[in-house]
Amino acid sequence: MKAIVFDKELKLDTNYKKPEPKAGEALIKVSMAGICNTDYEITKGYMGYVGILGHEFVGIVENVNSTKPEELAWKGKRVVAEISYGCDSPDCEWCAKKNYRHCPNRHTLGIWKKDGCFAEYMTMPVNVLFEVPQNVPDEQAVFVEPLAAACEITEQLHIEPAQKVLVLGDGKLGLTTALALSAQNLDVLLVGKHKNKLDIAEAQGVKTALLQEFKQEKIYDVVVEATGTASGFETSMGLTKPRGVLVLKSTVATGKELNLAPIVIDEITVLGSRCGQFGPALRLLKNNRIDFKPFISGIYSIDDALEAFEANKSKESLKILIKM
Amino acid sequence: MKAIVFDKELKLDTNYKKPEPKAGEALIKVSMAGICNTDYEITKGYMGYVGILGHEFVGIVENVNSTKPEELAWKGKRVVAEISYGCDSPDCEWCAKKNYRHCPNRHTLGIWKKDGCFAEYMTMPVNVLFEVPQNVPDEQAVFVEPLAAACEITEQLHIEPAQKVLVLGDGKLGLTTALALSAQNLDVLLVGKHKNKLDIAEAQGVKTALLQEFKQEKIYDVVVEATGTASGFETSMGLTKPRGVLVLKSTVATGKELNLAPIVIDEITVLGSRCGQFGPALRLLKNNRIDFKPFISGIYSIDDALEAFEANKSKESLKILIKM
Repeated sequence: MKAIVFDKELKLDTNYKKPEPKAGEALIKVSMAGICNTDYEITKGYMGYVGILGHEFVGIVENVNSTKPEELAWKGKRVVAEISYGCDSPDCEWCAKKNYRHCPNRHTLGIWKKDGCFAEYMTMPVNVLFEVPQNVPDEQAVFVEPLAAACEITEQLHIEPAQKVLVLGDGKLGLTTALALSAQNLDVLLVGKHKNKLDIAEAQGVKTALLQEFKQEKIYDVVVEATGTASGFETSMGLTKPRGVLVLKSTVATGKELNLAPIVIDEITVLGSRCGQFGPALRLLKNNRIDFKPFISGIYSIDDALEAFEANKSKESLKILIKM
Repeated sequence: MKAIVFDKELKLDTNYKKPEPKAGEALIKVSMAGICNTDYEITKGYMGYVGILGHEFVGIVENVNSTKPEELAWKGKRVVAEISYGCDSPDCEWCAKKNYRHCPNRHTLGIWKKDGCFAEYMTMPVNVLFEVPQNVPDEQAVFVEPLAAACEITEQLHIEPAQKVLVLGDGKLGLTTALALSAQNLDVLLVGKHKNKLDIAEAQGVKTALLQEFKQEKIYDVVVEATGTASGFETSMGLTKPRGVLVLKSTVATGKELNLAPIVIDEITVLGSRCGQFGPALRLLKNNRIDFKPFISGIYSIDDALEAFEANKSKESLKILIKM
């Protein structure tokens, strides 16, 4: 089968071995997948990962390796999947809570010990699959993983309706976060450097401001750092009210020297936030609370995958999708 | 009067003007004061502060500038004082909560816009004074401010009795924090590099381990970073369980490059924690829950203040006290 593989270099392998589902796993024919900045980071060495890239997808279950009727029932369904699965050992406190992303023996699709979704076929355990509601087209469903990551913030943190929330950064991550929080009726201000990107959020009801025109004040109860840069982190510290919460969403390390003293002086809480559960994200999509169409900068065939990765590098790009 | 002043250089001024209490303020004759690392940082330029140093003290109220009987009643009392006072404007949300340390127009004793306690006399508003219980000698009472800062952790964070707490660093800050948390019946492990310092905590019931002999595992629900170094911060990230809390207690900025990715991957909460309320700290002292005698590395007369500051620099020193 065709697969986009990273092994020292990025390549399109047209003869990759089609995977076979293990017990409890589904074989999924991938319909569409999305390139995430993490994929790009992996091609620069992040996590030391080697294998098929990709963790954002929507596909159809072609087969299930199981004898249990409730597992076999997945056959034929259009699905998405949470990207980490755990050891499912009875001793694992994380798997017991279905919080697979923190299981020390986890596998993570296209990131850690598990071939990804940039291929014609992939496998995943059925216990991390979610059926896509009929009214949600592939072009929206493929955004469920980053949307779930944005929803993770309100899973971790109680944001009160009267609190002021600021999202810093108008890339995919910042836009998705601002739209997801706004879709939960929170009072969100998105601040970024690009009017055309801010307009996408503004058109869906989010207040926005250009960083260069915006008055920086230490008045926000919750600030989400979505620039992935050290200077963005420092700006975020300066916007967070004393005893407020600074949510850190990006793993990008820039290696700049950081002075953490403001965290102590203002008693700020820095909350690391990663992947999220798919249920709330699918609910937002099903109810048409967010339209991801304006995010799509291009849809490429898997045959043009390298070109798609090049397009993803452009500062102008938001989401690049791949059709299998 | 005699005063230890920092103005480009540290000096003993034997002819400093005796302060006059403003309305609502007490004139306090200082009995004893303690040198904090923040004082040393100020002599290196921290906060750009100029004036009398010092914020840890115990003294006797000599006079009160007030006509109100409840304020005049402070006269003759042995007191300590919270180090920040606010604007007390009715619009200030922080002053309304008596959380003066976050008032944007605050004054902080010996640190920000307010002459400190390393002098024969000082003034403070009566609304931040606390009477020292009779059974607490000056040599213990003088530790109330750093002890309150340690108690601040449980003011900010609910630590469950079954959770594992690790304090990293066996200087004054680490020892005080470990003893304060242990005195609240929490399950505390203190990890440091100096057996003689760890022994002080061990003798008061805290479990301890030498860093060089200790197995570093990511299993602690709460880790308190008390080394004030970038490498200590990185070690702390590696000891904090996924979704655990890393408490940051020190404002020392080392300027080392920091990779914050583990905060996101493990969804760690970094909690900045500064000064604390004096009530709980005085309760611990009154009930003899902590003995600070072993912390005292030397007691100097104010006439020997420069020598005291030199002694404070020694790696072997814990607390250096000054008698007025």
